[in-house]
Amino acid sequence: MDKAEILKSIESLAQKNVNGMYLNDFLLTWDKSEDEIAATLQTAEILRALRQNNVSSRVFETGLAISIFRDQSTRTRFSFASACNLLGLAIQELDEEKSQVAHGETVRETANMISFLTEVIGIRDDIYIGEGHTHMQEVARAVSQGHQEGVLPQRPTLVNLQCDIDHPTQTMSDALHLINVFGGIEKLKGKKIAMAWAYSPSYGKPLSVPQGIIGLMTRYGMDVVLAHPDGYSLMPEVLEIAQKNSGQSGGSFSQVTRMAEAFEDADIVYPKSWAPFSVMQERTRLLQDGDRKGLQALEKRCLEINKNHIDWECTEMLMKSTRQGQALYMHCLPADISGVSCQSGEVEASVFERYRIPQYNQAGYKPYIIAAMIFLSKFEKPAEKLSELLHNTKPRVHK
Amino acid sequence: MDKAEILKSIESLAQKNVNGMYLNDFLLTWDKSEDEIAATLQTAEILRALRQNNVSSRVFETGLAISIFRDQSTRTRFSFASACNLLGLAIQELDEEKSQVAHGETVRETANMISFLTEVIGIRDDIYIGEGHTHMQEVARAVSQGHQEGVLPQRPTLVNLQCDIDHPTQTMSDALHLINVFGGIEKLKGKKIAMAWAYSPSYGKPLSVPQGIIGLMTRYGMDVVLAHPDGYSLMPEVLEIAQKNSGQSGGSFSQVTRMAEAFEDADIVYPKSWAPFSVMQERTRLLQDGDRKGLQALEKRCLEINKNHIDWECTEMLMKSTRQGQALYMHCLPADISGVSCQSGEVEASVFERYRIPQYNQAGYKPYIIAAMIFLSKFEKPAEKLSELLHNTKPRVHK
Amino acid sequence: MDKAEILKSIESLAQKNVNGMYLNDFLLTWDKSEDEIAATLQTAEILRALRQNNVSSRVFETGLAISIFRDQSTRTRFSFASACNLLGLAIQELDEEKSQVAHGETVRETANMISFLTEVIGIRDDIYIGEGHTHMQEVARAVSQGHQEGVLPQRPTLVNLQCDIDHPTQTMSDALHLINVFGGIEKLKGKKIAMAWAYSPSYGKPLSVPQGIIGLMTRYGMDVVLAHPDGYSLMPEVLEIAQKNSGQSGGSFSQVTRMAEAFEDADIVYPKSWAPFSVMQERTRLLQDGDRKGLQALEKRCLEINKNHIDWECTEMLMKSTRQGQALYMHCLPADISGVSCQSGEVEASVFERYRIPQYNQAGYKPYIIAAMIFLSKFEKPAEKLSELLHNTKPRVHK
Repeated sequence: MDKAEILKSIESLAQKNVNGMYLNDFLLTWDKSEDEIAATLQTAEILRALRQNNVSSRVFETGLAISIFRDQSTRTRFSFASACNLLGLAIQELDEEKSQVAHGETVRETANMISFLTEVIGIRDDIYIGEGHTHMQEVARAVSQGHQEGVLPQRPTLVNLQCDIDHPTQTMSDALHLINVFGGIEKLKGKKIAMAWAYSPSYGKPLSVPQGIIGLMTRYGMDVVLAHPDGYSLMPEVLEIAQKNSGQSGGSFSQVTRMAEAFEDADIVYPKSWAPFSVMQERTRLLQDGDRKGLQALEKRCLEINKNHIDWECTEMLMKSTRQGQALYMHCLPADISGVSCQSGEVEASVFERYRIPQYNQAGYKPYIIAAMIFLSKFEKPAEKLSELLHNTKPRVHK
Repeated sequence: MDKAEILKSIESLAQKNVNGMYLNDFLLTWDKSEDEIAATLQTAEILRALRQNNVSSRVFETGLAISIFRDQSTRTRFSFASACNLLGLAIQELDEEKSQVAHGETVRETANMISFLTEVIGIRDDIYIGEGHTHMQEVARAVSQGHQEGVLPQRPTLVNLQCDIDHPTQTMSDALHLINVFGGIEKLKGKKIAMAWAYSPSYGKPLSVPQGIIGLMTRYGMDVVLAHPDGYSLMPEVLEIAQKNSGQSGGSFSQVTRMAEAFEDADIVYPKSWAPFSVMQERTRLLQDGDRKGLQALEKRCLEINKNHIDWECTEMLMKSTRQGQALYMHCLPADISGVSCQSGEVEASVFERYRIPQYNQAGYKPYIIAAMIFLSKFEKPAEKLSELLHNTKPRVHK
Repeated sequence: MDKAEILKSIESLAQKNVNGMYLNDFLLTWDKSEDEIAATLQTAEILRALRQNNVSSRVFETGLAISIFRDQSTRTRFSFASACNLLGLAIQELDEEKSQVAHGETVRETANMISFLTEVIGIRDDIYIGEGHTHMQEVARAVSQGHQEGVLPQRPTLVNLQCDIDHPTQTMSDALHLINVFGGIEKLKGKKIAMAWAYSPSYGKPLSVPQGIIGLMTRYGMDVVLAHPDGYSLMPEVLEIAQKNSGQSGGSFSQVTRMAEAFEDADIVYPKSWAPFSVMQERTRLLQDGDRKGLQALEKRCLEINKNHIDWECTEMLMKSTRQGQALYMHCLPADISGVSCQSGEVEASVFERYRIPQYNQAGYKPYIIAAMIFLSKFEKPAEKLSELLHNTKPRVHK
């Protein structure tokens, strides 16, 4: 986008109702209205375009952004750091092991103690079913209360960097990728997307990506097909949301039990491993009990169960059955690539390789998605603010 | 404070003699004059008010602030990060395990090597009696020498983020809290404050908070009463300082051996656990010798000794005996709350809960106290500089 | 330098051909032309002088700099942080253990995933012979490809923070130190520098410093003498480079087998321990095989071999044999000092102590060297840009 196009996009953004996002968190995509989701995608594109035009979007002279990672992360960690830096915030990571949190401090107390000068808190907490989202809500309540009671001079915005239920920074990036590949949000209508389980010799992968995908993509009038072996079902409440969304958007949501059926004539395929729901639940219980032997046994059993479905692989053969053999392959990365990162995995190496660049592009939207989530929470009139940035044209790099 | 009030406060700050703080460290409150302590508290309030008025106090375009944590920390870690960020400095943590320090490098060398472009060094070193403050002095000497010898283009300012003797960023925040609760520094005169030992099922808590409190609060004409069981005495040199201060300020300093006596008619109570001095000394020796068995035995013995004083708990009953039953309860957090974070602890849950918000406020001053310490060390005419910031009115957030 | 002198230096910088550095990495000094090396040294001095004159060199409003340390580091870690901060970039460290890298992600993928908004990547990877430089090249290829394919909006610049072959940020700082001590780059001609192995009771020190020194110092018409016991030879390809360089520069490069011979009439001595090449190669193999027993045996054997050369120590006696007994003693720090950090080490305590300040100065150039490397890669017309900074005179500290 050149500056004229950016201006046009800002003008269209100004038409959207984003009042609900101001001073609000981003935890689940289905908590957001159509306008809010659309505005987030659009703001992300505008921030990206500003940067490409070397226009600084540093809106904070000072301010902290705090990240809390309860699980490993590369992409999301660097995306969050990039997003915050793009707006002028400095990152401070809360390492719970180096802090008093390990000493039994309550969530409420910690949330307030780290937030006195904090603008944003990003949290990844995706390991335990029933915990991640609950924890984020607890943090949100704590800082809301703290702000109301005058403890915090501002209420930090929470951004869900992956919980047990949803992974909105991922799925919104995925959506932006689809919009750019297919040429517009309206072009997604009627497209078939296959969210399919795939085999991986690993254990305990979160359910939040497939859940987030069916929860978001059903909003665009797409035909969303979920495929997984018996025992790998997703949370019932998310399935309901997908069903409801598809009804409202004029698309469909269906579940099948064979990968091939899901891939048939699909425009987009998203084959990805996740853990069986029941295993994740049992794991949470065992972890809470500190039952190491039980966990080892569970892991062994889970890997055994996985092995029964080693044929759930995104092969060239399967890809041929998609729309004109040319479905867009997607993955949130890193993928388990057969013969590369493991013996048998989620995807055949040649398929992965053919879609390497699109996948990297897909990942590349995440910093801007996160920056947009923060931006829309911090500025009451985001379109006006973006317009100011564009017109003042302070360079990002002083070339 | 609105801008007119800020200006008035700056004008009053200009009357104080703060020459001794310029290019100087902040290690112990009793090394600072009355004017210097008052100026620090006032500068903290001005910086807080500037931020509330969305005035940027970014005085550094670039510059590093280094933190060295030899003990766990949440509050102080984030307070230091917030303070440095508020002034425009970027945090870089020295993780001694990932550095050559682990290879036997001397303090002198490390201090210089990390300071070439460094404006501030914040250190927490509170575990070993006889070591923390000594270490900070060694770092201070090293960077002074380095600066004199032309190795360092500037001398970084040291801020004591808790040592074995004092915890000035905590106690100064406590003082600011008292000033705000009681309506002015002059209102503290004649108030009775009880710094009391309290039971905790933990081991090895530093003595620096009670020491810092009696060393600072005796300067305001308060009646400072220190209470602890036999064997939990503080460092003799700090007791002397408290005695001397109270004489000069027209207050009093006394020691009692029962919690109830300290609480009687108190305006403020600060019940908090700490380790017996002799145990801390023995612990230092055993740690230096690497005597693991000895340490385990000592910990066991210490916890046994602690248990003899399980009745040293801040109860509702005791609170009733304070001035009109309404003394201000203070804690540096996290507290050991009976029935919440432990079975029996420092404070009854209902007392803690009633004072939760005041305590959070108490903690919330710390970022500004630290920023004030840095500010007064970096600017020869701090009032002029603050006035400039106020008049130029660069916004912190570009709203 | 005052501002007039800075301007003069900028004018002379403008005469140098640095086109090859624009959008390029800094991996090995011998990949750079004479003009490029000279321009880096000069830019470092200009950036240092700007800071001394309180002129901000913040050229980035926002942007990330990523550091990857596969080995311990203090000096280089803080130098890199300082350099990036000086230009306005925020540091984000890639901790490979906390990232998906540990999950078998490829270098190509990780390199792209961390680079979407990244301006610089600094890498220390010096442990395995045959790996560090190769890894850096792989990262460089990955981000080049990513940029070409439109994945990355900019290509991040790579800075070698020490590999298995070279340690350019160290040796360039060393060169700047020599230039300042001897009064100009042209004064180095004809000077004798002894790069000598020295005994240390440690194991596995990289070869990159001695290799970097002979690869760089042979470019200035110096008489470079390399001394080491049998079995401690350097990589043959670097010896060839040194030989070639010395021929071109009108200096000499020779190898001797006694420390005393190298020190004889030397103007500069650089006594430093390193591991035997063959041990490093075997170590790489054993590490890759995960052969712990083999590694322990190798370490033991290596330390035994080292002990045969305990007399390779930089003593006062040896120093007397240098030019007028006053050769400049250099070390990249930390040094193994006899009787201080170890029983017998690389250098006698009194020698080290006499040269403590010069050594600290030597280390102090590194932040500016790194900043210069980044600067020259990011600005097509660096002299113009520096001139702008000088003339606009935005203060670094708003005093």
